[in-house]
Amino acid sequence: MTTAAPRLLTPGPLTTSLRTRQAMLEDWGSWDARFNQLTASVCARLLAILNGADSHHCIPLQGSGTFAVEAAIGTLVPRDGKVLVLINGAYGKRLAKICAVLGRTFSTFETAEDAPTTAADVDRLLHADSRISHVALVHCETSTGILNPLAEIAQVVERHGRRLIIDAMSSFGALPIDAREIPFDALIAASGKCLEGVPGMGFVFAQKAALAAAQGNSHSLAMDLFDQHSYMASTGQWRFTPPTHVVAALHEALLQFDEEGGLPARHRRYASNCQALLDGMAALGLRSFLPAAIQAPIIVTFHAPQDPRYRFQDFYERVKARGFILYPGKLTQVETFRVGCIGHVDATDMRAAVTAIGEALLHHTSIHRT
Amino acid sequence: MTTAAPRLLTPGPLTTSLRTRQAMLEDWGSWDARFNQLTASVCARLLAILNGADSHHCIPLQGSGTFAVEAAIGTLVPRDGKVLVLINGAYGKRLAKICAVLGRTFSTFETAEDAPTTAADVDRLLHADSRISHVALVHCETSTGILNPLAEIAQVVERHGRRLIIDAMSSFGALPIDAREIPFDALIAASGKCLEGVPGMGFVFAQKAALAAAQGNSHSLAMDLFDQHSYMASTGQWRFTPPTHVVAALHEALLQFDEEGGLPARHRRYASNCQALLDGMAALGLRSFLPAAIQAPIIVTFHAPQDPRYRFQDFYERVKARGFILYPGKLTQVETFRVGCIGHVDATDMRAAVTAIGEALLHHTSIHRT
Repeated sequence: MTTAAPRLLTPGPLTTSLRTRQAMLEDWGSWDARFNQLTASVCARLLAILNGADSHHCIPLQGSGTFAVEAAIGTLVPRDGKVLVLINGAYGKRLAKICAVLGRTFSTFETAEDAPTTAADVDRLLHADSRISHVALVHCETSTGILNPLAEIAQVVERHGRRLIIDAMSSFGALPIDAREIPFDALIAASGKCLEGVPGMGFVFAQKAALAAAQGNSHSLAMDLFDQHSYMASTGQWRFTPPTHVVAALHEALLQFDEEGGLPARHRRYASNCQALLDGMAALGLRSFLPAAIQAPIIVTFHAPQDPRYRFQDFYERVKARGFILYPGKLTQVETFRVGCIGHVDATDMRAAVTAIGEALLHHTSIHRT
Repeated sequence: MTTAAPRLLTPGPLTTSLRTRQAMLEDWGSWDARFNQLTASVCARLLAILNGADSHHCIPLQGSGTFAVEAAIGTLVPRDGKVLVLINGAYGKRLAKICAVLGRTFSTFETAEDAPTTAADVDRLLHADSRISHVALVHCETSTGILNPLAEIAQVVERHGRRLIIDAMSSFGALPIDAREIPFDALIAASGKCLEGVPGMGFVFAQKAALAAAQGNSHSLAMDLFDQHSYMASTGQWRFTPPTHVVAALHEALLQFDEEGGLPARHRRYASNCQALLDGMAALGLRSFLPAAIQAPIIVTFHAPQDPRYRFQDFYERVKARGFILYPGKLTQVETFRVGCIGHVDATDMRAAVTAIGEALLHHTSIHRT
């Protein structure tokens, strides 16, 4: 173990607090009542974040966030359902791929990577195809960091009597989502994102009546959220071996989430991180890809310096040597890199990261002065 | 965090070393070269345990062991294949349930919970049904702790030109399995068992030619081992977010596995644990469910005391208060409880556990003296 590990400015896994990691120093019996209480406390705290205790169940699932997304689609979309997948980045495309592999009928609507899907688009698409039973949307698309207008889209879906599935992987815990105001059948997130736990489990908030009607839909035993919830509701236990240390770390991270001041405080810190990053990078002459209005304070995509000598891998290593891990771009048409604003970091860390980036570029280019 | 957490005498999650848990005190970037090296080292070390580097790929997968078992069946059994599932406990039944949910044709052969499947049984069944393409077997069935004769069954399956899938969840790392001698298409285990890592990932050893022919078989995106392997082979990275801390803990556990003396030493320690347990429990008048010849040194099922005042939950709490967590029985016809021999424990711990069990029984029954 290095004593000064670099800070992770990525969409996750991200930097966690030492207290969260220290929660993994204990072994837990997965059958023991103390562990069942830990799981129940995690689920209750997660539901409280979106005011969902009356309307939704929280169903934790082993694996990465994508496992939970696939589980939500496989469990909640009936085999004769049809999904409209809204796409403006890699994670929207992944939703469509899941539908394809699972054999669920689907259609896609794709906008440019810097263009949010609009409620008017969805209204038109639902008018045109009455077979669509479900709409699947990525709230914050970390391919770019773009924010889609969740509340407006949810209202349109509701008005058409269709059901909404939200991939809120990178927004849950940081951007406000209130289950009393936004109707949805499923909202999916994971332990290692804005809650600042470690990666290893996802969770799905499933609308109670929708879940009750979902028995037998699933294509998978391990990913059957109906079974996962039924077993947990009757025994207090996970159906299959839980990632006990990951659950313990998430519980500790949720205690710190509340101590910090809950979602409003988390949102303020990330917004402050994002602003410090944008200001500092602008001063270095580095342009962000998205306009401010659709930039979520989660992860920022920057255009690569136009210096022909720029190579992301060299740049990455230079910044890493200065204590920060960046993230590669994910756009196909434009050379970019990404910097995350989330995790156990603050605006001081972001300014130090900007300094490191400036030094790294100075080292082999002069583009930051143009 | 309690300072004196009870020792877990269970089939997993189990007691790990402090050194293994301390490996989780660092955050890792999942895109970073250092983490890729960690993953590659884990896979190489796992392959070395069964001498499989020439014949098999090691494919790690997020989630519990059952996720990896489902992934192996879904990826390696073609959609028109037929699986013969050999059952003598709950985990064999789970294999059949996976086949049913995935829509793979299957038949079952079930023996009593204290009767191993024999090679002669398998020979007869394969003679009788030429449609069977794959045989699925649980090596050590932790429902009871029974050991099935893997080598003999593998030879029969090979002779018939069929393919073998082995759930070695609770035996891998403790009982010798040599890929140069035992032919199989898939062998599945997980981080939190005899390797003494923490739970949160499984892995599948897939025969190279079988995996190469498996594109498009999978029912699931997240559990597609063909995709998982292809992506990792070309990028060094996991396809979806890995449980970074769990991987780091497994790596550290594997270093300790080698330092202890590898599989022979691990097997000796567990055999010694098992013998200390059996001797001590016999002295208390508690009978083990299985005869010694088919008892694997992994987990032991004991008949419950016949005292009418015996209640497992009370007994469990009394033993726990003395520092040890036991495991409930899983048999339907007989009242039993189970004690694991695996994890970071030695014969001294097992003798202390026996003492705790004796005290717990003395406290509310006199059956231990009959």
